[in-house]
Amino acid sequence: MIKVGIIGVGTVGTSVVNILKKSADVISARAGCNIVVKSGVVKNIAKDRGLDITITDNVDDILNDKEIDIVVELMGGVEEPFKVVKYALESGKAVVTANKALLAYHRYELQEIAKDIAFEFEASVAGGIPIINALRDGLSANHIESITGIMNGTCNYMMTKMTNEGVAYDVILKEAQDLGYAEADPTFDVGGYDTAHKLLILASIAYGIDTKPEDILIEGIENITQDDIAFAKEFGYAIKLLGIAKKDKSEVELRVHACLIKQDKMIAKIDGVMNGISVVGDKVGETLYYGPGAGGDATASAVVANIIDIARSGKSTPMLGFNRPMEGDTLTLKPSEDIESKYYLRINVSDKTGVLAKLTKIFETHNISIETILQRPSENERANLLISTHIAVEKDIQAMISELETLDFVHTKPMMIRVV
Amino acid sequence: MIKVGIIGVGTVGTSVVNILKKSADVISARAGCNIVVKSGVVKNIAKDRGLDITITDNVDDILNDKEIDIVVELMGGVEEPFKVVKYALESGKAVVTANKALLAYHRYELQEIAKDIAFEFEASVAGGIPIINALRDGLSANHIESITGIMNGTCNYMMTKMTNEGVAYDVILKEAQDLGYAEADPTFDVGGYDTAHKLLILASIAYGIDTKPEDILIEGIENITQDDIAFAKEFGYAIKLLGIAKKDKSEVELRVHACLIKQDKMIAKIDGVMNGISVVGDKVGETLYYGPGAGGDATASAVVANIIDIARSGKSTPMLGFNRPMEGDTLTLKPSEDIESKYYLRINVSDKTGVLAKLTKIFETHNISIETILQRPSENERANLLISTHIAVEKDIQAMISELETLDFVHTKPMMIRVV
Repeated sequence: MIKVGIIGVGTVGTSVVNILKKSADVISARAGCNIVVKSGVVKNIAKDRGLDITITDNVDDILNDKEIDIVVELMGGVEEPFKVVKYALESGKAVVTANKALLAYHRYELQEIAKDIAFEFEASVAGGIPIINALRDGLSANHIESITGIMNGTCNYMMTKMTNEGVAYDVILKEAQDLGYAEADPTFDVGGYDTAHKLLILASIAYGIDTKPEDILIEGIENITQDDIAFAKEFGYAIKLLGIAKKDKSEVELRVHACLIKQDKMIAKIDGVMNGISVVGDKVGETLYYGPGAGGDATASAVVANIIDIARSGKSTPMLGFNRPMEGDTLTLKPSEDIESKYYLRINVSDKTGVLAKLTKIFETHNISIETILQRPSENERANLLISTHIAVEKDIQAMISELETLDFVHTKPMMIRVV
Repeated sequence: MIKVGIIGVGTVGTSVVNILKKSADVISARAGCNIVVKSGVVKNIAKDRGLDITITDNVDDILNDKEIDIVVELMGGVEEPFKVVKYALESGKAVVTANKALLAYHRYELQEIAKDIAFEFEASVAGGIPIINALRDGLSANHIESITGIMNGTCNYMMTKMTNEGVAYDVILKEAQDLGYAEADPTFDVGGYDTAHKLLILASIAYGIDTKPEDILIEGIENITQDDIAFAKEFGYAIKLLGIAKKDKSEVELRVHACLIKQDKMIAKIDGVMNGISVVGDKVGETLYYGPGAGGDATASAVVANIIDIARSGKSTPMLGFNRPMEGDTLTLKPSEDIESKYYLRINVSDKTGVLAKLTKIFETHNISIETILQRPSENERANLLISTHIAVEKDIQAMISELETLDFVHTKPMMIRVV
C-alpha cells in the first residue's frame, strides 16, 4: 500500500482525495497496489471538507510522517513550496506537484535534489493533457523543432468570444470573471505570465534549456480590439495567445504573445477554455495534444496519474527528460530583438492625404516590407491602418514603432501582433 | 551501452537505424547511455541498404546473440512474428514492435510471456502519436468512457478528398494508390480491418478487455457516395471512418464503421492522411491526440521512443496498463445488435406517389423514428431518399433494412451510416 499526504487541500486537492477513493477499483488494478490518502494540510482547519482523511494545519505532520510515501504539493506560491518540496525529497519521499510557478523558478535545483527520488509535475502544464508525458517519453527520439501552445484557458475563452460574438475586451473580461474563469486581478493570465511559466517547463524537456520568466519575451492580450479581429477574419486568421519555443540552429526562441495564425492550422481550431499544444519533431512531424487545461478533476487526473506512475515503478524517467547534458553545442536563448516574424500593425492616424505616403516611407527606412494594408474609419477624422508585413526582425519593428509614436499624425501607440 | 537487433529492415526499420545513428546526441542524453543497432534481419540479403550494421537473413543470428538487449520486430504478419517475439522474450530480451496484427491476436499471451521483461508497442497504434503512452500512463486515473479514433490515414485522406473536392470513391482510391497511400488490394484499410486491430489494442489498455477482430462490428467506407457527402454537408456533418470503444455500464461497445460527426467536434476537423484519437475520461473529460499515423520516420519515432524507455528504466509500466485485473464486475463486449445510435440511410426508390408513405410506415413498425428527410433525384425515374433517425437499436435497423430490400420500389440495398 502506498500512502499519500496532500499539502494544500483546495479544489484540486479535494479532487485528488475523491478520485483516489472513488476510482480505487481501476487505480489499484493499474498501479498493482492500493493507494490511499492518509492526511492533508490546510490553512483553515475549522472548515469541514467532508473528507475522511486526517486534516492538519501543520506541514511537518506530513513531512515527518514516516508512513507517507508520496507528498502532493498543491499549496501555490514559489519559495514556501520550494522549501517544503526540498525537505520532502531530502527525506526520501516522492513528490508530485501541479505548481508551475515553483517549476518555472526552481526546476533545475529540484532536479539536483531529487536525484533518484521521483518528482513528477504532469499537472503543472495544461492541466489534464498528458503533455509532459508525451514530450518527455513519447517524442524522446526527436530533436524538437518547435512547441506552439494555447496553455491558458482564460485567454483562449476571451479570444474565442471576442472573435465569435464581436464582444469588446472589457466586456468579455468581466464575463470571464463572473464565470470564475478569470481572477479579480487577471494580470497573471491575460498578461501571459501563466503561459510563460508553462512554456519554460516544456522548453526544459525539449531542449534542456534553463531560463527564468524574466529572461523571455512575455506579452498579453490586453490591447486587442475588434479592429484587430476584423483584420484577422478578413485575411483568414485566428488570434490566439501562444507560448512558442522554437529551435534555430544553436539558439532557442522562447516567447509568449498574441499571434495571428491561419485558420486552417489545427492549433487555430482550439476554441473556448480548452488548451492545445502542437509539437513538431524532426522525425515525427507535427503532433498535437488537446484537452482541458484547468479545473479540479482534470488537474487531479494528472496528479493521480503521476501517483500511479510512482506506485508502479518509482522513478522511471529523468525529471526534465535528460539523464545527462547533450554533448557538443549547448543551446542558448535567442535574444528577443533577433526574433524574426511576420507582423501585423494597427496604427491610428489622421485621415489626411499624404499620411500613407509618409508612413510607408518610414516602413521602408526600417527595412520592413508591407504585405497588405486595410484602412478602416475611426472617430474624430482619424483612420485605423491595419498593416501586415513580410518577414522582419523584431528590433527593426520595435525601432519603427518607437519612431511612429513620435509622429504628430499617429495618435495612439501602434498595436503590434506577430503572425505565425 | 544498449544493443539493438532489428528483425525486418524495411522502410520503418531503416528509419530506426538512421534515427539511432543521426540523433545519437539527443537520444544518448535522454536515455543516459548509448544505443546502437548491432544487426538487422532481411529477406533479401543481396540488396545494399547503405546501413553500417550487420545484415543477415537468419532470425536466429539476432535471437541467439547474447549481446543484443532489445529486439525490434518489424517483420509483419501474425504467427511468424509471434514465434519470434515469444522466443526473444523467453531469452530475456526486451521487445519493441510496431505490429498491430500481432497484438490484435496475441497481446494477452504476450503479456503473460513478457512478465518482467519490457514489451513495448507504441508504434502499433496511430504511428507517431504517443497514444499508448497517453492512455496507459497519462490518463491512468480515469475510468475511460469512450475512445473515438481516426486511425487509418488512407481512409481519412479519401474521405477528406471526397468531401472537399467532390470526387467519386473509385477515382480517389486510384489516386491514393498512385500516391502510395493505399495498397493494390486496399481491403485491409478501406474495409476497416486496420482500424479494428488498433482499436482492440486501445480497448485492452482502457478496459482490460480481451477481444479478437472477429468478435466486433467492422465495416468500411466502400459504399459511400457523393449523395451521402451532400447530405452530411447539408446537415453540418463530416463523414469519417472511426474506431469506437464505449463503456455502457458493465458492457463495452467496440466497432469500426463510417460515421457522420458534427463538424464542430475536434475529431471532425482532422483531415487528410492525419490521425486523431479522442479519449473521454470520467475525470479529465475529453482529450485529443493528433498527428501522423504512418510513414517511416513517424513510425520509427515511436519505436525509438520505446527503445529509450527501456534503456532508461527497463519495464516501468504493465504492458496492457493493468498490473492486476479489476475487482468486481468484469467488463464484457456488448453484442453488436444491442448498439444504440442515430442512423442515416440512403434508399434508392421509385419516384412515385405513395412510396414515401409506405416507407415511413415501415420505419414506424420497426420502432424507428425519423428526424430528417432529404429527397434527391436519381436516374431512371428514381429518387434517393436521405433519411436520418432519432436514437434506434442496431437490430431494429438491420431488420428494417432487410425488409426494405424485399420491396419492389426499393432498387438497391439501402446504405446506412451511423451518426455519432
